[in-house]
Amino acid sequence: MASVITAVDIHDVRFPTSLELHGSDAMNPDPDYSAAYVVLRTDGPQHEHGHGFCFTIGRGNEVCTAAIRAHAPLVVGRSVDSVVADLGGFARDLVRDSQLRWLGPEKGAVHMAAGAIVNAAFDLAGRAAGKPVWRLLADMEPERILGLVDWRYLTDALTPDEALGILHRARRGREQRIAHLLADGYPAYTTTPGWLGYTDERLAELSKQAVAEGFSQIKLKVGADLEEDARRLRVARDAVGPDIRIAVDANQRWDIADAITWTKALAPYEPYWIEEPTSPDDVLGHAAVRRAVAPVKVATGEHIHNRVVFKQFLQAGALDVLQLDACRVGGVAENVAILLLAAKFGVPVCPHAGGVGLCESVQHLAMFDYVSVSGSLDDRVIEYVDHLHEHFTDPARVRAGRYLAPTAPGMSTRMHDESLQHYRFPDGPVWAGR
Amino acid sequence: MASVITAVDIHDVRFPTSLELHGSDAMNPDPDYSAAYVVLRTDGPQHEHGHGFCFTIGRGNEVCTAAIRAHAPLVVGRSVDSVVADLGGFARDLVRDSQLRWLGPEKGAVHMAAGAIVNAAFDLAGRAAGKPVWRLLADMEPERILGLVDWRYLTDALTPDEALGILHRARRGREQRIAHLLADGYPAYTTTPGWLGYTDERLAELSKQAVAEGFSQIKLKVGADLEEDARRLRVARDAVGPDIRIAVDANQRWDIADAITWTKALAPYEPYWIEEPTSPDDVLGHAAVRRAVAPVKVATGEHIHNRVVFKQFLQAGALDVLQLDACRVGGVAENVAILLLAAKFGVPVCPHAGGVGLCESVQHLAMFDYVSVSGSLDDRVIEYVDHLHEHFTDPARVRAGRYLAPTAPGMSTRMHDESLQHYRFPDGPVWAGR
Repeated sequence: MASVITAVDIHDVRFPTSLELHGSDAMNPDPDYSAAYVVLRTDGPQHEHGHGFCFTIGRGNEVCTAAIRAHAPLVVGRSVDSVVADLGGFARDLVRDSQLRWLGPEKGAVHMAAGAIVNAAFDLAGRAAGKPVWRLLADMEPERILGLVDWRYLTDALTPDEALGILHRARRGREQRIAHLLADGYPAYTTTPGWLGYTDERLAELSKQAVAEGFSQIKLKVGADLEEDARRLRVARDAVGPDIRIAVDANQRWDIADAITWTKALAPYEPYWIEEPTSPDDVLGHAAVRRAVAPVKVATGEHIHNRVVFKQFLQAGALDVLQLDACRVGGVAENVAILLLAAKFGVPVCPHAGGVGLCESVQHLAMFDYVSVSGSLDDRVIEYVDHLHEHFTDPARVRAGRYLAPTAPGMSTRMHDESLQHYRFPDGPVWAGR
Repeated sequence: MASVITAVDIHDVRFPTSLELHGSDAMNPDPDYSAAYVVLRTDGPQHEHGHGFCFTIGRGNEVCTAAIRAHAPLVVGRSVDSVVADLGGFARDLVRDSQLRWLGPEKGAVHMAAGAIVNAAFDLAGRAAGKPVWRLLADMEPERILGLVDWRYLTDALTPDEALGILHRARRGREQRIAHLLADGYPAYTTTPGWLGYTDERLAELSKQAVAEGFSQIKLKVGADLEEDARRLRVARDAVGPDIRIAVDANQRWDIADAITWTKALAPYEPYWIEEPTSPDDVLGHAAVRRAVAPVKVATGEHIHNRVVFKQFLQAGALDVLQLDACRVGGVAENVAILLLAAKFGVPVCPHAGGVGLCESVQHLAMFDYVSVSGSLDDRVIEYVDHLHEHFTDPARVRAGRYLAPTAPGMSTRMHDESLQHYRFPDGPVWAGR
């Protein structure tokens, strides 16, 4: 008998990261990295399972667990085979629920929840196929990849035929790129040195350490105080020398005029990109900033909520670097659409990571992009923060400034059962005493 | 002793409207109009209270109640005087919570929840002042109105100084407009005839009835089948004659090319506006549709999630008619920003209503716009659906095609206690048996 999805288990898991100022920036002074975590359970012969999550920074994680719960009736009872055979159709069924989409459409808690479940389904599919998800995707025929995408609202910028052309062109050299990934991994950059809460000494020390570890790019948080930002950027520049790229990240702090003034004031220290200079909803604003601050590049994406907004950023020439996020949009299915859009417009994708589990998830998307979509590593780096990986059964591994290609089946999204219990909010042992 | 907000009561209230096909359209075949309803309770001498809600269409209403609950710690314990004295500051405190905003920012369930609480605070302020909210706003000094607005991300399109100029210019004629409103009300249009679930006979009959009742505009849902839409539009046109405006509403059904083709095919029947032709996130797409389908106007807004997106729709010339919604954005405070933006760009505001409680809420915004912002009724109408008003203690009243100005204190957002109990989900008497 065909196995079915028997349950959607949901966990509210929170890590008290605010106690150590890890992750502090101009908009997020005290994040507690958290996951609204979902397990798809099945009655298959090995009780196959799939794992995914919404990433949040603390309060509100319970809104995401409620949103995941709201989708559960659309999931429980489906046959595993039908989900794995049509992951795109499964994703569309979640995203298009006519009542739930009122809370979006395709944005906010309901969309993040759908994304968590979709990612769990890809994890399940990878486990069922015995492949890491990047490889599961890379092994799909181009026509099957097209079927992952919700084409609604995309066709003025990218048609299925154009996407098919992109995928067919990328077939050439595919095997070499897979071999290259398995041998050398994928380039990473690190945000570890640059949180706002750190002293200059710690910033300089961590910056040097990053270079010593093999990273060719680091990132600094900016946006709270211009004079301090200039000083910190100079400290970092002095520490790493002229050949290391330093990105700066304003975390949405500015209006358009301020974004331009501030970025130009930092330009003497050669920031490589300015990240999230303003509201992630502001396509036209980012386009204006980009025109004004070149050659400093404009990067954004971790808060862009769906493919329709990414489409416009690309159409309007509003970004130089596209930072997709594994847990913001509707999961792997929508991120495949975003990778195809980026390839059409010739914009490099440098995924957002850090948080908890984002490095684990997003590496699969970047590696699939390299093998099957863009076919390139030029100016492409995945963010890396060395933080909370110990909670995952297949943690992201970075060596000499590069992500090693995951080889275990699935999407690397499974947390240890002990972590789920220990950090359970509000009654796990870490929280019960507070 | 100054009174404080002692509790945030939350109710999940759902009306089984799907049973009668009220509200059916191309994207929402079976809505159950619902409210995630909030009461701000105080320990004031009369136990003053404020009422607000998120409007949803059924499933997911519990995600909004969870999102309201997540904001409660930011509300309970505040003094009523401090909230009423700085409603803008109160709204910003909710919207800017650094952890909750991760689920947006300023979109989806958390933003709708903040909006519900902000509207409840305006209701409370109106009650405290003994004024309907439209009048509370209209009686504020221009400088105080500026303080309601979150200026972040707006200044490239509208500065506080420009807004002050708009408000000062509108002081002229203010008293006459208030008198006019109190005497004649505000023009309305009706969507009652045009739901997709209705037969041609019912459509024709309800269309004629709308004209007989004094409405000068009706609206039809379209987007499921072009031939049927043309037939229904012809039926309605035949029923109402050439002088009544007929708007058509596609509820986000189309890609850009389809929106253009379809609207042009309906043009012979002279639709006045095409509403929500495509994704509400697609500023550039709407601009392309608008260029192509003129003189048919483009209307949208009920799903536009915040002022930053409205700003871009106006900057890009992407709409002719701005349909703000009382329960989508961050409440009255953000809607004041949206009214000021619309006035700057000279675009008429025709609020979205219907659902449950939207007519009650939105009339206050349109009337404030008329008195204190745009100063005009030209091409301005508030949507009206004669549905579920009986659940409110101060229901919207439409006579001869016009909303009568509310005179009771507050925002007309209070539901009868019996309705809250009877329609409580899932255990109220209406739902417990299903």
